[in-house]
Amino acid sequence: MLDCLSLFLYYNLFICMSASIITLLTDFGESDGFVGTMKGVIYGINPDVKIVDISHDIEPQNTSEAAFVLRNSYRYFPDGTIHVIVVDPGVGSVRRILCVSANNQYFVAPDTGVLKYIYHECDDVLVVNVSNRKYFLSFVSQTFHGRDIFSPVAAHLSRGVDMRELGEAITDYERGQIPELSEKANVIEGEVVHIDRFGNLISNIPFNKLENRDKLRVRVKNLTIDSLANSYAQVKTRRPVALIGSSGFLEVAYNLGNAKEELNCAIGEKIAVIFDD
Amino acid sequence: MLDCLSLFLYYNLFICMSASIITLLTDFGESDGFVGTMKGVIYGINPDVKIVDISHDIEPQNTSEAAFVLRNSYRYFPDGTIHVIVVDPGVGSVRRILCVSANNQYFVAPDTGVLKYIYHECDDVLVVNVSNRKYFLSFVSQTFHGRDIFSPVAAHLSRGVDMRELGEAITDYERGQIPELSEKANVIEGEVVHIDRFGNLISNIPFNKLENRDKLRVRVKNLTIDSLANSYAQVKTRRPVALIGSSGFLEVAYNLGNAKEELNCAIGEKIAVIFDD
Amino acid sequence: MLDCLSLFLYYNLFICMSASIITLLTDFGESDGFVGTMKGVIYGINPDVKIVDISHDIEPQNTSEAAFVLRNSYRYFPDGTIHVIVVDPGVGSVRRILCVSANNQYFVAPDTGVLKYIYHECDDVLVVNVSNRKYFLSFVSQTFHGRDIFSPVAAHLSRGVDMRELGEAITDYERGQIPELSEKANVIEGEVVHIDRFGNLISNIPFNKLENRDKLRVRVKNLTIDSLANSYAQVKTRRPVALIGSSGFLEVAYNLGNAKEELNCAIGEKIAVIFDD
Repeated sequence: MLDCLSLFLYYNLFICMSASIITLLTDFGESDGFVGTMKGVIYGINPDVKIVDISHDIEPQNTSEAAFVLRNSYRYFPDGTIHVIVVDPGVGSVRRILCVSANNQYFVAPDTGVLKYIYHECDDVLVVNVSNRKYFLSFVSQTFHGRDIFSPVAAHLSRGVDMRELGEAITDYERGQIPELSEKANVIEGEVVHIDRFGNLISNIPFNKLENRDKLRVRVKNLTIDSLANSYAQVKTRRPVALIGSSGFLEVAYNLGNAKEELNCAIGEKIAVIFDD
Repeated sequence: MLDCLSLFLYYNLFICMSASIITLLTDFGESDGFVGTMKGVIYGINPDVKIVDISHDIEPQNTSEAAFVLRNSYRYFPDGTIHVIVVDPGVGSVRRILCVSANNQYFVAPDTGVLKYIYHECDDVLVVNVSNRKYFLSFVSQTFHGRDIFSPVAAHLSRGVDMRELGEAITDYERGQIPELSEKANVIEGEVVHIDRFGNLISNIPFNKLENRDKLRVRVKNLTIDSLANSYAQVKTRRPVALIGSSGFLEVAYNLGNAKEELNCAIGEKIAVIFDD
Repeated sequence: MLDCLSLFLYYNLFICMSASIITLLTDFGESDGFVGTMKGVIYGINPDVKIVDISHDIEPQNTSEAAFVLRNSYRYFPDGTIHVIVVDPGVGSVRRILCVSANNQYFVAPDTGVLKYIYHECDDVLVVNVSNRKYFLSFVSQTFHGRDIFSPVAAHLSRGVDMRELGEAITDYERGQIPELSEKANVIEGEVVHIDRFGNLISNIPFNKLENRDKLRVRVKNLTIDSLANSYAQVKTRRPVALIGSSGFLEVAYNLGNAKEELNCAIGEKIAVIFDD
């Protein structure tokens, strides 16, 4: 009876361990079947894994957009999750493919700075240059490494392959650029780093820079907002509002409207906070 | 041996019970990673649940469109399914978040009338005002309750938490408006309540109003169709056709064409049926 | 103890066998909830199956595009996978619904030639005319066979129903047209059969026609490219490049650009390879 029980426990454990998660973040769109094909490869290697789509609507080759979307998503996944990012302008060239562990999670991505927020925010970063062809598909095309390298590598990782098996640890990876704040006496100047589906302008000014500062103004283009709100709905319909968004950064929006269109604003636009206290 | 068997049965049962389904219906689009983040939260709480996307392409803040899409989908899911609807113009304001049980299923949605068809069609409606922060994420933002409240609440429900644990039962929820028919002697007038991807115009005139009525005409804008067809293909390519669509309502389409464009028609357009028998 | 073990093994086997994959390829888009509804039907019949989206962004009723996307995806899925294709201009008409086995996989699709590459590439094709209403939903609409027929049939297949149970084997199915190459002494002429999200032009000229041919030129519209590259990145930004793409066909692209737009090119455009050796 005891043996039976331990068999049960083992089996249970096995199920739980193998039921890890692989997330996919690409610029592949939906129409060509690229993402579905990657899932076929993954399930062929690990039928028990769960696959979650983060986004496949990243603007083609827009590494910065992918980096920001990843930053806002990864921390909400359980330990052991494997994030696969295929926004890869240099596919087939000499750019390296990395496997990174950080924050008790894994990241499989090209060495293009798309992981810049991970490097910036996590203390426990280990980076491996993925080169062990044993974990690739047997035929590797020059144009679809998402299918031929990223997917099988992630699937093998999810089955428990040690990331050090994938290649040599490196330290000269591309760290990428995170837009910096300019901080003066009573002014912080940042910029719009992301515009979401609703046209909300998300800046790189983090919430903790604004804590306990009651009197402040937010300026973007020729709009000035005189205080921080707690929600979009705190202002009238189609009126501008500044608040701390869900990613922890200062955000400018129009309640039930579209700030991007109202202000004719693009990524990179300056946003300033002026403190009057 | 008996003990072993009962352990088996229990285990089996446990697996079956925990393998429930959570569906997601939002206006979040795909590009920002919002939906993927919600899935991370859900799997973190219940790794065994299945997650199904109903749509994330609802027009931003279009509660009516979401209500109709939900109406056509929910009944095709197994008992115990938990439907999460985040089309939420009032996020962060005083609008309540509801957990509703009806038709042996659950619905987690803002109190905006997005569940109006559920209230209208189901007899066994129980509504709870979700307020127990024990089932929220520990930090709740003002702008992304889909992540911080809806997802964890649904995940806990899927693990067997009793919905009465989530908050107080209420009866003063927002019932919403369902467009009504105008019925005269030989005319029923309704309106276009949904336009699908193919440009088909779906009305609010249900099939049972047209049963056993052989001679009828359908009128929308300045088009008149002289009979009901059994399929799109029953008329020639690019010709108009009226039939009972898959949602059980009268529908006007163009075979292999686009009725919305042909007729320059929008949601709310009147559709009339004239009976000649 | 032995009995217990065999029970374990049986249970284990049962889990593994029932955990097959159903893929979905449609022109339904995301906004109407059609795909989510199909998944509800499938999980209602087989809660253990995995569902993978190949694409739902096929241009409405574009059977050829769906055929090509399927061709590039299906071979990357494990044995036993069931592919459901609902690009179905003739829904509700007399067109037949087929269940096809080939390459150790299954295909459930309308008899419109959407499986033309499967018929062309596989030796072991068995085709059944799906007619056994026992495996349909009890109510079958005239406009949404994806929900009422394709989904339940696939779900029952995934539970182990023999495909011969679904209907009679037939041989007079629609084989479809595959664009043919014109091959002369030193010229192969094909055409653009697919344009992917990045604007890359994929032809029907397979890689093996170009093997061991060092000196060649590729011509499309009034552009001539003087050699084959190994990757997009082998040429400068926004310069044209010809290479063997991930589907095994000759492809014309612009590195970090969009060949479709640069060349104003559509499906069906001629592509020629001229050999100079």
